[in-house]
Formats: sequence, structure tokens, C-alpha cells
Amino acid sequence: MSGELKREMLAMGAAARDAARTLRESSNDTRNEALRVAASALRARVPEILFANAEDLKAAADSSAAMRDRLTLNGKSVEAAARGLEAIAALPDPLARVLAHWKQPNGLDISRIATPIGVIGMIYESRPNVTADAAALCIKSGNAVILRGGSDSVRSSRAIHAAMLDGLQAAGLPEACVQLMQTTDRAAVGEMLQGLGGAIDLIIPRGGKSLVARVQSEARVPVLAHLEGICHVYVHKDAKLEMARAIVLNAKTRRTGVCGAAETLLIDKAVLSSHGIAILNDLKSVGCEIRGDESIRAVFPAAKAATEEDWRTEYLDAVIAVKMVDGVEDAIRHIETYGSHHTESIVTEDAATAERFLAALDSAIVLWNASTQFADGGEFGMGAEIGIGTGKLHARGPVGVEQLTTFKYVVRGTGQTRP
Amino acid sequence: MSGELKREMLAMGAAARDAARTLRESSNDTRNEALRVAASALRARVPEILFANAEDLKAAADSSAAMRDRLTLNGKSVEAAARGLEAIAALPDPLARVLAHWKQPNGLDISRIATPIGVIGMIYESRPNVTADAAALCIKSGNAVILRGGSDSVRSSRAIHAAMLDGLQAAGLPEACVQLMQTTDRAAVGEMLQGLGGAIDLIIPRGGKSLVARVQSEARVPVLAHLEGICHVYVHKDAKLEMARAIVLNAKTRRTGVCGAAETLLIDKAVLSSHGIAILNDLKSVGCEIRGDESIRAVFPAAKAATEEDWRTEYLDAVIAVKMVDGVEDAIRHIETYGSHHTESIVTEDAATAERFLAALDSAIVLWNASTQFADGGEFGMGAEIGIGTGKLHARGPVGVEQLTTFKYVVRGTGQTRP
Repeated sequence: MSGELKREMLAMGAAARDAARTLRESSNDTRNEALRVAASALRARVPEILFANAEDLKAAADSSAAMRDRLTLNGKSVEAAARGLEAIAALPDPLARVLAHWKQPNGLDISRIATPIGVIGMIYESRPNVTADAAALCIKSGNAVILRGGSDSVRSSRAIHAAMLDGLQAAGLPEACVQLMQTTDRAAVGEMLQGLGGAIDLIIPRGGKSLVARVQSEARVPVLAHLEGICHVYVHKDAKLEMARAIVLNAKTRRTGVCGAAETLLIDKAVLSSHGIAILNDLKSVGCEIRGDESIRAVFPAAKAATEEDWRTEYLDAVIAVKMVDGVEDAIRHIETYGSHHTESIVTEDAATAERFLAALDSAIVLWNASTQFADGGEFGMGAEIGIGTGKLHARGPVGVEQLTTFKYVVRGTGQTRP
Repeated sequence: MSGELKREMLAMGAAARDAARTLRESSNDTRNEALRVAASALRARVPEILFANAEDLKAAADSSAAMRDRLTLNGKSVEAAARGLEAIAALPDPLARVLAHWKQPNGLDISRIATPIGVIGMIYESRPNVTADAAALCIKSGNAVILRGGSDSVRSSRAIHAAMLDGLQAAGLPEACVQLMQTTDRAAVGEMLQGLGGAIDLIIPRGGKSLVARVQSEARVPVLAHLEGICHVYVHKDAKLEMARAIVLNAKTRRTGVCGAAETLLIDKAVLSSHGIAILNDLKSVGCEIRGDESIRAVFPAAKAATEEDWRTEYLDAVIAVKMVDGVEDAIRHIETYGSHHTESIVTEDAATAERFLAALDSAIVLWNASTQFADGGEFGMGAEIGIGTGKLHARGPVGVEQLTTFKYVVRGTGQTRP
């Protein structure tokens, strides 16, 4: 990377840090105004956003259909982004929270209050709408953000970013609250991972395995991990047949490309014939490829043979790995061995077994009698999310505006000194 | 590092992961029994602990007095460690907390419940009592821990570790819940920072600048930062003289070697003569070296000249940097420029000025009319702490048993699928 580019990036970091200070002290009304004006600006800028998107699509003519699909915008998706900004503006102020408050025997009055994290570095891939969503979640939570989108979507992201700047200007907030990296040089990502001279407090990567692997090996600043979702559904022997069929079909096929989609189905030995075959036929009838272990293939010959690798694979596609298990402990063992600690569901009418499953698994989200596709900030009532955290630290599960805050202790005394 | 050592360390990681699973499912009573038996074992083992400590001190004959002081144990300090374990056992169960609970319109019942983090890697320096404190905080919070103490205190730490194992055995918990690294090879720390093959969820470093710098540059797993405390006291123009004298003297000199000790004093221009000189005389009379800017030296000629470096220095000694500031905004600017975001205090009778200081500063702990030496888990009512976090993520300020937990979402449904 050229020295000039490095200097430019350090300047972005310094500008973000200054902007974060202003944003931290801004009112919720000011931040909401920025979001509402940005929503109007998105609508006003539809023609130029779609023109930019058409240019991106032209440049991506040789890419896969799935990639082009993620990249494509239309009037409806821009309107959805605008409504998303308005929905985030309508959320309660995440910074107006006293998280705890108590008095010590010596009279010290201690509060733990929510504060912004500071400067967030967001690294993502081809979906251009992330530019609007991530910017809005950061503004609402009082954080400055440096966005680095995929090079494929750079023109679309710039057009969306222009609308965000309209909002910041109208609200009297610094433009550096939301900076979009203009270069497509990959070395710039490395510079972000070094923290831009101490300016970045947190990196949030959203993307495929190679991006996440790079972030994990290079980052010198804290990372809010968004890894893959190898989500499981376990059909227990006491599952209602119709409920199990509906949940498995929804968990796998409602949308196959989301991180909360089920990737592995565990069917209890006791209901392999009674429930298993019906469930597998449902999946097959909608075009889902089934990869089963020997026990599955014995009762469902249409299944391909699953390999060890299948248990560790996030397909994000119409493919499912299916295994027979012998009781809840066997299911728990499989999930702890092969899972990614994202989201797992048990289908059963037996409360004790369900509670055992919910307690034993160390995943961010564990469900009883519900589809794994509920792993989503909107479905959790958080309004919007920047992703689903799979790490152990700071935040797990849907990361919404509250999860983009930290806290500080405010202590009010009357002259106390420590003995 | 030899291949054998590396294999041994990976085996420690795997053992810790297994132990963490058992610990996660253990009851609070079981974990408390381990702590109480360990406390008795510490008392029973006083002779061998002091013998081991004498060996450590013999080997450290050429070390500095401060280092030998940190290393030294006696009957009283071992008793303090034993009482510390009992106090941690008496704390409420940090895992029995429902952090949030709500119902979605579709009937999904969502709880956010506290869970252990998993396996913690604790890297510390010469204080051998940290072996007992850190082990106890991790056991109480359901986390397995791998301890890597300073090589100077390795014999003392082993003797204390033996008492912790007595406790685990008596409670029927795996010994691998608390492992002490036996080697003094520095390469072993590097291996921990790589995460021991995915076994370590969190690294907590406690020690000097060079240790922390190494951890920050090498760690491939999340780190709970415990950096230096460049703590400030600001004496505002509306400070009561006697209160300001008492707070400054306590903040600087109660104990100079703790991270909550004040390192920089900011005196408002308006009270430089009326308050400043009395405060500086107090400090001088107890042997504290004063390094002042020009304005300070003009009214207090005994002060040495402060350099730019002094504003960035954590002395941990009887030395204080003193600067004249012109109003609360000037004080805030200085602290944001030079501080380490640990703990800052304002002394004033003016509530509006105090609230401005408390709101504007982005430090883990901000105090009004109280000594910075209150930056301590015990003083905050948390019972005990593993240190004071200075990062922005997961936990800031005193890190006690609650801060050593994370959470998961438990979702109970009745067959819901996502539209």
C-alpha cells in the first residue's frame, strides 16, 4: 500500500474519533433526525442508486448468480432500506439506559450507564443495503463507523452513503460519523484491522469464511465475531409429527441463504420411521438434497451418503445433513462436537428433555418447538440487527442497537476517601 | 518450543474444555464447597506455602525491593487469601441470573440467561495470591482456568494451587478446572495467546506494560484488557478546600502501587493559590514528588518541571504530575488527550459542572467528590475482582464474578415457524 493511502486512512481514523466525540454528546432527537432525513434522501435518490447498481452489475457480469442476486437492488429493496432507517429511528434511545444503580454503605451512589463503544469498523461483502443498515445502527447507538464494503458493490454503496450524509448534514452532525472507504485496495482492510492508529474500538466482519479467517488472524483490535451458523434441529421421540414436519421444513427451506437456516437434522432413533420418513419426503419434495448417515439411508434410500465433512458444513443452500441419534444426550454430544454455537432447536412435547437440551448446549440461541429461522434481531423484538454474534464476549445472538453500546460507572460522593 | 511441550499444552487446553463442560453444569453448592475446602486447605498448608515462598525469594535475591515485596507471602497474606475464597463462596450465584425475559407477539417466550464464558487463560506476574483469587473467581463463575503466573513466583503458586486442587477434589469437580502451567518457558505464553487449539475463550493479562504489549500484539483470541490507570483528580473552582485536600491526598498516597491511584492532579486556575498550595504542601509533607507545569512551579517552586511524558505516565509511586487548567472543558480536554480511560474524579460543589465532567469523559469510572482509590470491585460491592477492565468491550471497570459470565438466549415456543 502506498504511503499516501496509509496517511489517508489514518486521517479517516482521526476524523472518526473526533466525530464519535460529537456523536456521543448528541441527543437522541438529533440522531433520529439524521436517520429520518437519510430515509427521505434514499427515496429521492432511487434513480441514481439504481444507476450505480446497474454499473456494479455490469462489472459483475461474470459472477455467480447467487453473488449477482446479493448485489442487485431495485425500487423495493431501496424502499425497504429507507423503512429500516425509520424503524431504527423509532427505537428507544439505547444510550438512555441506567443498567444498574445502587448505594454503598459509605454513601457512594453508583450507577452503571450505557455509553457508545466509540468507533466501529464494519467490513462486509456484496450486499449494498448493509451500508444503510450498519450506518443507521451505529448512528442510533452513538458510534462513528468506518464502512468497508465489498469491491463488487462499491458504486451502489457510494450512492447509498450519499443519502446517509444528507441525513447527517441536516441534523448538524459531522459527516465523519459515517465514512465509506473509497478504495478497493485489499491492503486497506489490513490497515483497518491494525486499528488505524488506535482509532478503531471494534471490528465487525460480515461475510464468508475467508474474510472471517483473515480478520481473526490479522486483527489487533477487538472483533465481534459473526461466524457461520451450523444450526441443528433435533426431532425427539416425543415430538408431535405435524409440528416436527412444519419446523424442519421452515428451518431448512424458508430461506436457505441465512445464517439461521438449519444445516443438520438429528432424528431420534425411536421416531425414524414414524416421523423421519415423512420429514425427509417433505424436504425432498421441495428440491432439498439429503445427505444421510447409514441409518438414514437404510430407511430413505434417496439420501446421498454424508461424510464427516457434512456435519461441519454450512451449506447456505438447499442441502441438509441428516443423522440418526439415540436420545437427547447423543444429540447434545453431536451438536457440541460439530456445531458452531449459533442456533439449535429441539422439537418435543417432553418438558424435562427440552429443558435438558436448552441447559446443556452452549449456543447463542437455543429453541424449544420453534424454527431456527427465528434467529434474527427483528424476530427477537430488537428492531434491527447488524448480525448474529457467535463469539462469547460482549454480545451473542442478534446484535442490535443495545448490543452496540458499552457502559461506564458514574459514582457520586460527598467527599469519601478510602480507608 | 519443543514439540513435546506444545503437545502438553494442547492437552491442557483439551482438558480445560472438558472440565469447563462439567463446571458449567455443576451446582452453585458444589462450586462453593470447592472454594470453602480450598480455603481450609490453604490454612492447613501454610508451612509448605511459606517454605515454597522462601525458595522463590531466595531465587529472587537480586530483584528489586518492590518486586520482592510483591512476591512475599506470610501467615497474614495466606489467611487473607483463604478469607477471600470464603467471601467469593458467599457471593450470590452469578449463573442464576435471568438477565431479561419477554414474550413476542407470536407467543415465543425469550429469556437471556447468564452462562459461563468457558475457558479463561490468566497470565499474571509476581503476586502469588493471584493464583488463589483468579482460580476462585473462575470457579464461582463456572469457568475453567489455565493459570500462567510469573516465573519468579512459580514455587509459591504451585503450593497455593495444590490447595485449590484439594477443594476441587472434595467437591467432586475435575482437577482440570484449575490448571497451573508448570513450565517457565516464555514460549508457553505465546502458545496460550494462540488459544491452545481453540480451547481458550478469553485471555486476561495482569501485569506490566511489556506483558500487556505482548498480549495485544500476539493474541488470536479475545482479550479482556487491563491496561494502566493514568487516573486524574480535577479540583474545580467550587471545590471545598478541606474536601479537596482529603481526596487528593487519599487518591495519590493511600496506596501508590494500585491502578486506581491518582497520577495527575489538575488544579483550576481560579483556586491555584487558595487550594493548590495547601494541597501540594500536603503531598510534599508525606514525601510525594511533585512535577508541575510552569504555572504550578510559579506558585510552588519546590515542584520539578513536568515534561510532556509526565502527562502520560503511570508512576505507581510517590510521584504526581500537576497541571493548572482553566475550567472544566480544559480539564476534560487534558484527560481525553492523555488519560487511559480508567478512573477520574472531580471535586466541586457545583452540580452542573460535576454532571458535565461525569457525562463528557469516556472513562470506565468517573467520580464526583470521592477518591479514585475507590476503583475496586470490593469497594463497588462486587465482593472481589480479577482486575479493572480498561477496554470498551464486554466489561469495563471492576471485573468480578458477574463480569466473568456471558449469556445465551433460551426461546420456548409452541411450534412457531417463521413467515
